[in-house]
Amino acid sequence: MNEAIFTTNNLWLLVATCLVFIMHLGFASLEAGFVQRKNTVNILFKNCMILSIGLLTYYAMGFNLMYPGADYAGGFFGFGGFGISMPEGAAGAIDYNSGTYTYYTDFIFQAMFAATCCTIVSGAVAERIKLVPFLGFCILFVSISYPITGMWQWGGGWLSAAGFHDFAGSTLVHAVGGWGALAAIILLGARKGKYTSEGINPIPGHNMPLAAIGVFLLWFGWFGFNGGSVLSADPVGVSLVFVTTSLAAAGGAVAAFFVSHLLFKTHDLSMVLNGILGGLVGITAGADLMSPGEAIIIGAIAGAIIPISVVFIDTKLKLDDPVGATSVHLVCGLWGTLAVGLFGSKAGIGQLWIQLYSTLAIGVFTFIFAFAVMYVLKVTVGIRVTEEEEEKGLDVSEHDMNAYQESEKMENYSLAVK
Amino acid sequence: MNEAIFTTNNLWLLVATCLVFIMHLGFASLEAGFVQRKNTVNILFKNCMILSIGLLTYYAMGFNLMYPGADYAGGFFGFGGFGISMPEGAAGAIDYNSGTYTYYTDFIFQAMFAATCCTIVSGAVAERIKLVPFLGFCILFVSISYPITGMWQWGGGWLSAAGFHDFAGSTLVHAVGGWGALAAIILLGARKGKYTSEGINPIPGHNMPLAAIGVFLLWFGWFGFNGGSVLSADPVGVSLVFVTTSLAAAGGAVAAFFVSHLLFKTHDLSMVLNGILGGLVGITAGADLMSPGEAIIIGAIAGAIIPISVVFIDTKLKLDDPVGATSVHLVCGLWGTLAVGLFGSKAGIGQLWIQLYSTLAIGVFTFIFAFAVMYVLKVTVGIRVTEEEEEKGLDVSEHDMNAYQESEKMENYSLAVK
Amino acid sequence: MNEAIFTTNNLWLLVATCLVFIMHLGFASLEAGFVQRKNTVNILFKNCMILSIGLLTYYAMGFNLMYPGADYAGGFFGFGGFGISMPEGAAGAIDYNSGTYTYYTDFIFQAMFAATCCTIVSGAVAERIKLVPFLGFCILFVSISYPITGMWQWGGGWLSAAGFHDFAGSTLVHAVGGWGALAAIILLGARKGKYTSEGINPIPGHNMPLAAIGVFLLWFGWFGFNGGSVLSADPVGVSLVFVTTSLAAAGGAVAAFFVSHLLFKTHDLSMVLNGILGGLVGITAGADLMSPGEAIIIGAIAGAIIPISVVFIDTKLKLDDPVGATSVHLVCGLWGTLAVGLFGSKAGIGQLWIQLYSTLAIGVFTFIFAFAVMYVLKVTVGIRVTEEEEEKGLDVSEHDMNAYQESEKMENYSLAVK
Repeated sequence: MNEAIFTTNNLWLLVATCLVFIMHLGFASLEAGFVQRKNTVNILFKNCMILSIGLLTYYAMGFNLMYPGADYAGGFFGFGGFGISMPEGAAGAIDYNSGTYTYYTDFIFQAMFAATCCTIVSGAVAERIKLVPFLGFCILFVSISYPITGMWQWGGGWLSAAGFHDFAGSTLVHAVGGWGALAAIILLGARKGKYTSEGINPIPGHNMPLAAIGVFLLWFGWFGFNGGSVLSADPVGVSLVFVTTSLAAAGGAVAAFFVSHLLFKTHDLSMVLNGILGGLVGITAGADLMSPGEAIIIGAIAGAIIPISVVFIDTKLKLDDPVGATSVHLVCGLWGTLAVGLFGSKAGIGQLWIQLYSTLAIGVFTFIFAFAVMYVLKVTVGIRVTEEEEEKGLDVSEHDMNAYQESEKMENYSLAVK
Repeated sequence: MNEAIFTTNNLWLLVATCLVFIMHLGFASLEAGFVQRKNTVNILFKNCMILSIGLLTYYAMGFNLMYPGADYAGGFFGFGGFGISMPEGAAGAIDYNSGTYTYYTDFIFQAMFAATCCTIVSGAVAERIKLVPFLGFCILFVSISYPITGMWQWGGGWLSAAGFHDFAGSTLVHAVGGWGALAAIILLGARKGKYTSEGINPIPGHNMPLAAIGVFLLWFGWFGFNGGSVLSADPVGVSLVFVTTSLAAAGGAVAAFFVSHLLFKTHDLSMVLNGILGGLVGITAGADLMSPGEAIIIGAIAGAIIPISVVFIDTKLKLDDPVGATSVHLVCGLWGTLAVGLFGSKAGIGQLWIQLYSTLAIGVFTFIFAFAVMYVLKVTVGIRVTEEEEEKGLDVSEHDMNAYQESEKMENYSLAVK
Repeated sequence: MNEAIFTTNNLWLLVATCLVFIMHLGFASLEAGFVQRKNTVNILFKNCMILSIGLLTYYAMGFNLMYPGADYAGGFFGFGGFGISMPEGAAGAIDYNSGTYTYYTDFIFQAMFAATCCTIVSGAVAERIKLVPFLGFCILFVSISYPITGMWQWGGGWLSAAGFHDFAGSTLVHAVGGWGALAAIILLGARKGKYTSEGINPIPGHNMPLAAIGVFLLWFGWFGFNGGSVLSADPVGVSLVFVTTSLAAAGGAVAAFFVSHLLFKTHDLSMVLNGILGGLVGITAGADLMSPGEAIIIGAIAGAIIPISVVFIDTKLKLDDPVGATSVHLVCGLWGTLAVGLFGSKAGIGQLWIQLYSTLAIGVFTFIFAFAVMYVLKVTVGIRVTEEEEEKGLDVSEHDMNAYQESEKMENYSLAVK
């Protein structure tokens, strides 16, 4: 290792940071597109705040919980202190012979990941959760729960020691967000009018171009999410990850196309969009281990899961998830984690077992944490808006504004009517 | 060449891959903005599928058709076998002393290019083509036609031997897509109500912000499209390409501004947007050869061509191209290819002649291929939706959904009316 | 310094160029979202033209005014001649031992910055300015005013000699744009119906998702704006700037959340969006000097300023700024410039004094220049559309088109009514 390669490695991590950053716009667009028009400002507002809160709390304590950097209790818990601090002497922070990036690069790349788990929750609870309690949940989830389970693997904790493989976070990021989403929607209940005595009413999203923009931006950002997780600009490693990530997404789209056509006899855009995301989540745990062909299979299975899982959760479990976050992030996150034991260079029954109990251990911790926090919020300040507020829409009731202004012609028209 | 420079070169190709990827969102946004509201889901759906199909088919056979990597018939055709495979031993795949990027980097960068040619077609055939036959056309076009003509030049085939210069694909990508679009719209016919006995009806796009977002994203992606085509991070080469690409786009915008004002006596946003794209397509063949001043001239001529070509194709040829794809990609693609013989370090009558017959050879092959495939589809399964489906819009007839949901107020209103 | 590090440094500047480029889409989206529906095409058109004009005029003379590269009058003015020209011999242009990027890289990175100052103005004057006079103003502002004050600092002029510190342009770019905006809105007057005898009418933006997309893209681009201003890929320098930039933006969002809730008793999305931008503008002058904690404080103060400044300018000064550009870019630009004297490694009363008089000197020059040009335009060709044009909207009156087409259903409806 020398100064030139160190500089290139560090640069790639910073470019990857930019790419992961733009995933937050991807989530914001996707979720805004999939909710009703009357809740658009609310979801945009939440996504701005989640990102900001996530960065600040990860700075305040998350980073030092996730990477305690010293002995900690049995590999389960450690804490390196509040805040972050550049080691003494900026130049001295770099050991060109050992490291691949600076301390600050490490922090900012990881910080961009951290907020993602709450963004996943925000889509599932959209259209009926109270803003301020939700932001309170996010602070605790992103600064305590996510870093603790993250430490178990990426911080060198007990799952890492056990041989768990979760390259870029099918479990650590996506399933974690998905478990949080599941806990939240169980406690929160369905949107008004969703499940009635006459049947289940689909509540279509209000803006498909926004949703499509969101998915393309998420795919774009995933090059940094997975590619950056190589933690260097190693040519072989990063280029393989680009190939597996792209082909899994493509496989997800095509499988979702066929399976949703079989199920619904139509060409459902939202299924193809979620199929792409499912493929991306599915490959994330093993993007560094798979051949291109294996990546296509993993992505295609994830894409095939999507329409089945969305229908199952919606009609059998009767859990109301407006954007399909639990299917995309939890179900495909589990699938991707297990796929490491089924395909690629680590495949084997032993690895499969490690993958299974590791993802379940993280799932149990996360679900209990999220459920407990949400439950306490529910019985104290309340987590759900009133029926009237939900009817009116959160944009007006929480934010006193509309996402869109009608054309001038229509305004005049309505004035004339009065 | 050493490991550090190899790593940097490879990194730039991967970042360029991300940039070319985002062009697919650019095309999706642009085309969605330029079609009618009732066909928005359809165009988004097509663009998701084209990208995914493009990546998978390029993996399955396109890459090995375009870069057969061994002797092949007279420089016209070769095939390296199905699928791709990393040469034995990942580390051994890298010869730090000879190459600039890994095998996987090569594949994924090229794969992102491949789907582009079908995306160009999708804009021209929008609002009336049947979804599944079109996807069938895309599979053949992107996995057979595009790689064969691509091999003629970039794969070391007969045009490369003849001295043809097409740096990043004014002909190989853009004109190829444009010829496909031309063949398709001839066979498909105009949209209902476009050409009537009372005259030609403009059918305005439904969402100009989407169209503008698309053009900015395409320009953004073009830094990777052209800049990545240097095939290394060579400082002089890449920085020159950034300058010529930017200035040609700017020249295109300003020329389209003036010429469209002369023609239409107004400031036409769609012409300026297409002027930018025309400038970008125009500089693509010679972005590595031009001085900044020459780039401005090439871009400005392309931008000036746009409004003239759009009007000519629409009113004289009576070919219905909702987004202007033939003017932008075919006409400006031809212009850019010829400009290599007129400007820059290779200018000369000999080069001009090579440019001319090379682009015509590729055009003839591509047009015949596209026309034949579309014709067979037309007389077998049919390529056009019914009049009723077109009237209702493809979103409802093909996808059973709407791109936008009206405001709740309006829904209540319509319920009250019932 | 060697070839490998030179190549990496140059690559980062080019990637940063792409990121700064996308800020123009960020501005276009943000401004389009914050204006009324009837003026959307106009704002998109202006932003396309400003970028293109900016690149061409910066090529024609701006670059050589900003970096005259030789002796010039007392550090106040210099001119290196029209156009740019690669020094003799492309290879010779690179001194691997002394420089960090090529001549062309330098030009294109700086050129992307230049147009920004006019884009800032375009938001403030939206919805009532005449298109062609405004473009005339832009040509002069971006090719003369911006490069002259830019040279005072970045071109090695008198403020640079005095010890002024403006890392990436809180003053040189943002306050300069803000002063131009202030001069323009004073001369232009408020939008019709904004200030009436019955009170001040808020005129809400028509599309909040567009505005949010704009802000996320601006934050994304700011990684290149600030990160590229390190002028190399130096690992410590660039990673610190990423951290300070991100945390300041997050601090801005959270502070704007609280202060706007105190002031307005609601959760105002536009304030949080502008709070993010305020935090970014605020950190720009000292992003290289601050610790993460100081960055949060600077950003938070900027975010807190936003709602107060927006209300003050709107209700006390009665200056009509549809997007809040003066608050974001001028007020927070001044704050960020002064913050260099209050926080970080250069803090001190001496530095504070230098910061103050430097930003005022640039402000005075810029305001007088912008006011004079706008005034001459006002008394000659006129700068404001007629009342009827403003009422109808600039999209129809200047561009003869609408940004959006209503749904087919509604068109039929209106036909039925006739």
